[in-house]
Amino acid sequence: MSGDFRLKLKAQLYCGAEIAMGPGKAELLEAIVQEHSISAAARALGMSYRRAWMLVDVMNRCWSGPLVDSMSGGARGGGAVVTPLGQEILRHYRALEAELDMATHIPDYAALAALIAPMPRR
Amino acid sequence: MSGDFRLKLKAQLYCGAEIAMGPGKAELLEAIVQEHSISAAARALGMSYRRAWMLVDVMNRCWSGPLVDSMSGGARGGGAVVTPLGQEILRHYRALEAELDMATHIPDYAALAALIAPMPRR
Repeated sequence: MSGDFRLKLKAQLYCGAEIAMGPGKAELLEAIVQEHSISAAARALGMSYRRAWMLVDVMNRCWSGPLVDSMSGGARGGGAVVTPLGQEILRHYRALEAELDMATHIPDYAALAALIAPMPRR
Repeated sequence: MSGDFRLKLKAQLYCGAEIAMGPGKAELLEAIVQEHSISAAARALGMSYRRAWMLVDVMNRCWSGPLVDSMSGGARGGGAVVTPLGQEILRHYRALEAELDMATHIPDYAALAALIAPMPRR
Protein backbone atom coordinates (compact mmCIF):
# COMPACT_ATOMS: atom_id res chain seq x y z
CA MET A 1 0.00 0.00 0.00
CA SER A 2 1.22 3.49 -0.58
CA GLY A 3 0.17 7.02 0.20
CA ASP A 4 0.48 7.64 -3.53
CA PHE A 5 -2.50 5.92 -5.12
CA ARG A 6 -0.51 5.15 -8.29
CA LEU A 7 1.86 2.73 -6.58
CA LYS A 8 0.79 -0.47 -4.87
CA LEU A 9 3.41 -2.67 -3.25
CA LYS A 10 2.69 -6.21 -2.17
CA ALA A 11 5.14 -7.76 0.29
CA GLN A 12 5.05 -11.55 0.42
CA LEU A 13 7.15 -13.49 2.94
CA TYR A 14 8.00 -17.03 1.90
CA CYS A 15 8.60 -20.14 3.95
CA GLY A 16 9.83 -22.66 1.40
CA ALA A 17 7.27 -22.59 -1.41
CA GLU A 18 4.45 -21.34 0.87
CA ILE A 19 3.54 -17.69 1.43
CA ALA A 20 3.88 -17.26 5.19
CA MET A 21 2.54 -13.70 5.17
CA GLY A 22 1.08 -11.35 2.58
CA PRO A 23 -1.67 -8.76 2.20
CA GLY A 24 -4.53 -11.30 2.27
CA LYS A 25 -3.23 -13.22 5.29
CA ALA A 26 -2.57 -10.00 7.23
CA GLU A 27 -6.12 -8.85 6.51
CA LEU A 28 -7.49 -12.21 7.67
CA LEU A 29 -5.48 -12.01 10.92
CA GLU A 30 -6.90 -8.56 11.61
CA ALA A 31 -10.42 -9.82 10.94
CA ILE A 32 -9.87 -12.71 13.40
CA VAL A 33 -8.67 -10.20 16.04
CA GLN A 34 -11.90 -8.30 15.40
CA GLU A 35 -14.32 -11.22 15.12
CA HIS A 36 -12.79 -13.78 17.52
CA SER A 37 -13.71 -16.50 15.03
CA ILE A 38 -12.34 -17.81 11.73
CA SER A 39 -15.78 -18.25 10.19
CA ALA A 40 -16.95 -14.76 11.21
CA ALA A 41 -13.67 -13.30 9.90
CA ALA A 42 -14.17 -15.13 6.59
CA ARG A 43 -17.71 -13.77 6.33
CA ALA A 44 -16.54 -10.24 7.10
CA LEU A 45 -14.03 -10.49 4.24
CA GLY A 46 -16.42 -12.21 1.80
CA MET A 47 -14.10 -15.24 1.78
CA SER A 48 -15.17 -18.88 2.02
CA TYR A 49 -14.64 -20.58 5.38
CA ARG A 50 -12.58 -23.23 3.61
CA ARG A 51 -10.21 -20.64 2.14
CA ALA A 52 -9.85 -18.80 5.46
CA TRP A 53 -9.12 -22.08 7.20
CA MET A 54 -6.46 -22.95 4.59
CA LEU A 55 -4.77 -19.56 4.98
CA VAL A 56 -4.72 -20.00 8.77
CA ASP A 57 -3.30 -23.50 8.34
CA VAL A 58 -0.46 -22.21 6.15
CA MET A 59 0.32 -19.40 8.61
CA ASN A 60 0.30 -21.80 11.53
CA ARG A 61 2.84 -24.07 9.81
CA CYS A 62 5.18 -21.36 8.49
CA TRP A 63 6.32 -19.52 11.62
CA SER A 64 8.13 -20.44 14.82
CA GLY A 65 4.71 -21.18 16.36
CA PRO A 66 1.00 -20.85 15.60
CA LEU A 67 -0.43 -17.42 14.80
CA VAL A 68 -4.03 -18.44 15.43
CA ASP A 69 -5.41 -20.63 18.22
CA SER A 70 -8.80 -22.03 17.38
CA MET A 71 -10.85 -23.34 20.24
CA SER A 72 -12.57 -26.58 19.42
CA GLY A 73 -16.35 -26.48 19.28
CA GLY A 74 -19.19 -27.69 17.09
CA ALA A 75 -18.92 -27.72 13.32
CA ARG A 76 -17.43 -24.33 12.39
CA GLY A 77 -18.03 -23.80 16.06
CA GLY A 78 -15.55 -22.51 18.62
CA GLY A 79 -13.88 -19.15 18.53
CA ALA A 80 -10.34 -18.28 17.53
CA VAL A 81 -7.72 -15.89 18.84
CA VAL A 82 -4.59 -14.43 17.32
CA THR A 83 -1.69 -15.49 19.54
CA PRO A 84 0.86 -12.99 20.93
CA LEU A 85 3.27 -14.29 18.24
CA GLY A 86 0.62 -13.65 15.59
CA GLN A 87 0.08 -10.12 16.89
CA GLU A 88 3.84 -9.49 16.86
CA ILE A 89 4.16 -10.71 13.26
CA LEU A 90 1.16 -8.65 12.17
CA ARG A 91 2.67 -5.54 13.78
CA HIS A 92 6.04 -6.05 12.06
CA TYR A 93 4.36 -6.77 8.72
CA ARG A 94 2.28 -3.57 8.83
CA ALA A 95 5.38 -1.61 9.88
CA LEU A 96 7.32 -3.11 6.94
CA GLU A 97 4.54 -2.03 4.57
CA ALA A 98 4.59 1.48 6.06
CA GLU A 99 8.37 1.67 5.52
CA LEU A 100 7.92 0.58 1.92
CA ASP A 101 5.86 3.71 1.33
CA MET A 102 9.21 5.47 1.01
CA ALA A 103 9.35 3.86 -2.45
CA THR A 104 7.48 6.92 -3.69
CA HIS A 105 10.64 8.94 -2.93
CA ILE A 106 12.79 6.81 -5.26
CA PRO A 107 13.73 8.88 -8.35
CA ASP A 108 12.82 5.99 -10.67
CA TYR A 109 9.34 6.01 -9.22
CA ALA A 110 9.05 9.77 -9.80
CA ALA A 111 10.17 9.23 -13.41
CA LEU A 112 7.49 6.54 -13.89
CA ALA A 113 4.76 8.57 -12.19
CA ALA A 114 5.51 11.46 -14.55
CA LEU A 115 4.94 9.19 -17.57
CA ILE A 116 1.69 7.52 -16.50
CA ALA A 117 -1.41 8.81 -18.26
CA PRO A 118 -3.93 10.53 -15.96
CA MET A 119 -6.50 7.92 -17.03
CA PRO A 120 -6.36 4.98 -19.47
CA ARG A 121 -7.13 6.05 -23.04
CA ARG A 122 -9.95 4.26 -24.81
CA MET B 1 12.14 -9.57 -6.25
CA SER B 2 14.69 -9.57 -3.54
CA GLY B 3 18.17 -10.89 -2.95
CA ASP B 4 16.73 -12.54 0.13
CA PHE B 5 14.62 -15.44 -1.09
CA ARG B 6 12.20 -15.07 1.82
CA LEU B 7 10.89 -11.69 0.67
CA LYS B 8 9.12 -11.06 -2.61
CA LEU B 9 7.93 -7.55 -3.43
CA LYS B 10 5.51 -6.84 -6.25
CA ALA B 11 5.33 -3.24 -7.44
CA GLN B 12 2.18 -2.37 -9.37
CA LEU B 13 1.72 1.03 -10.98
CA TYR B 14 -1.87 2.09 -11.47
CA CYS B 15 -3.48 4.27 -14.09
CA GLY B 16 -7.03 4.72 -12.84
CA ALA B 17 -8.29 1.19 -12.16
CA GLU B 18 -5.86 -0.42 -14.65
CA ILE B 19 -2.42 -1.78 -13.79
CA ALA B 20 -0.10 0.19 -16.07
CA MET B 21 3.00 -1.80 -15.07
CA GLY B 22 3.73 -4.79 -12.87
CA PRO B 23 5.90 -7.91 -12.81
CA GLY B 24 3.95 -9.72 -15.55
CA LYS B 25 3.82 -6.76 -17.93
CA ALA B 26 7.53 -6.03 -17.44
CA GLU B 27 8.34 -9.65 -18.23
CA LEU B 28 6.19 -9.50 -21.35
CA LEU B 29 7.93 -6.30 -22.54
CA GLU B 30 11.31 -7.99 -22.11
CA ALA B 31 10.11 -11.00 -24.07
CA ILE B 32 8.91 -8.72 -26.89
CA VAL B 33 12.35 -7.02 -26.95
CA GLN B 34 13.81 -10.50 -27.28
CA GLU B 35 11.34 -12.04 -29.74
CA HIS B 36 10.32 -9.01 -31.84
CA SER B 37 6.76 -10.33 -31.86
CA ILE B 38 3.85 -10.43 -29.42
CA SER B 39 2.87 -13.98 -30.32
CA ALA B 40 6.44 -15.30 -30.00
CA ALA B 41 6.80 -13.45 -26.67
CA ALA B 42 3.53 -15.01 -25.46
CA ARG B 43 4.76 -18.47 -26.47
CA ALA B 44 8.09 -17.92 -24.73
CA LEU B 45 6.24 -17.07 -21.50
CA GLY B 46 3.66 -19.86 -21.82
CA MET B 47 0.93 -17.18 -22.05
CA SER B 48 -1.98 -17.16 -24.49
CA TYR B 49 -1.71 -14.74 -27.41
CA ARG B 50 -5.01 -13.22 -26.33
CA ARG B 51 -3.72 -12.49 -22.83
CA ALA B 52 -0.44 -11.04 -24.14
CA TRP B 53 -2.36 -8.84 -26.54
CA MET B 54 -4.62 -7.60 -23.73
CA LEU B 55 -1.64 -6.75 -21.52
CA VAL B 56 -0.03 -4.83 -24.39
CA ASP B 57 -3.30 -3.02 -25.02
CA VAL B 58 -3.53 -1.92 -21.36
CA MET B 59 0.10 -0.76 -21.37
CA ASN B 60 -0.41 1.16 -24.60
CA ARG B 61 -3.39 3.02 -23.13
CA CYS B 62 -1.93 3.77 -19.69
CA TRP B 63 1.20 5.79 -20.45
CA SER B 64 1.98 9.04 -22.20
CA GLY B 65 2.38 7.05 -25.44
CA PRO B 66 2.48 3.45 -26.68
CA LEU B 67 5.06 1.06 -25.22
CA VAL B 68 4.73 -1.47 -28.03
CA ASP B 69 4.42 -0.82 -31.76
CA SER B 70 3.00 -3.79 -33.60
CA MET B 71 3.50 -3.88 -37.32
CA SER B 72 0.41 -4.99 -39.13
CA GLY B 73 0.65 -8.28 -40.95
CA GLY B 74 -1.36 -11.45 -41.46
CA ALA B 75 -3.35 -13.02 -38.67
CA ARG B 76 -1.02 -12.96 -35.65
CA GLY B 77 1.40 -11.89 -38.28
CA GLY B 78 3.66 -8.84 -38.19
CA GLY B 79 6.38 -8.24 -35.67
CA ALA B 80 6.36 -5.89 -32.72
CA VAL B 81 8.93 -3.59 -31.15
CA VAL B 82 9.18 -1.98 -27.75
CA THR B 83 9.26 1.78 -28.32
CA PRO B 84 11.96 4.05 -26.81
CA LEU B 85 9.30 5.11 -24.26
CA GLY B 86 8.62 1.46 -23.45
CA GLN B 87 12.32 0.82 -22.97
CA GLU B 88 12.64 3.85 -20.69
CA ILE B 89 9.68 2.70 -18.56
CA LEU B 90 11.05 -0.84 -18.36
CA ARG B 91 14.43 0.50 -17.23
CA HIS B 92 12.90 2.67 -14.50
CA TYR B 93 10.64 -0.17 -13.35
CA ARG B 94 13.54 -2.62 -13.01
CA ALA B 95 15.57 0.06 -11.20
CA LEU B 96 12.65 0.68 -8.82
CA GLU B 97 12.49 -3.06 -8.08
CA ALA B 98 16.24 -3.11 -7.43
CA GLU B 99 15.90 -0.20 -5.00
CA LEU B 100 13.13 -2.03 -3.19
CA ASP B 101 15.61 -4.77 -2.36
CA MET B 102 16.73 -2.47 0.43
CA ALA B 103 13.55 -3.62 2.20
CA THR B 104 15.62 -6.49 3.56
CA HIS B 105 17.54 -3.91 5.61
CA ILE B 106 14.38 -2.69 7.39
CA PRO B 107 14.49 -3.83 11.04
CA ASP B 108 10.89 -5.05 10.87
CA TYR B 109 11.86 -7.33 8.02
CA ALA B 110 14.77 -8.71 10.05
CA ALA B 111 12.37 -9.35 12.94
CA LEU B 112 10.00 -11.23 10.62
CA ALA B 113 12.76 -13.22 8.93
CA ALA B 114 13.95 -14.38 12.36
CA LEU B 115 10.48 -15.75 13.14
CA ILE B 116 9.81 -17.63 9.89
CA ALA B 117 10.18 -21.40 10.13
CA PRO B 118 12.99 -22.85 7.96
CA MET B 119 10.37 -24.93 6.16
CA PRO B 120 6.59 -25.30 6.58
CA ARG B 121 5.67 -27.90 9.23
CA ARG B 122 3.37 -30.69 8.16
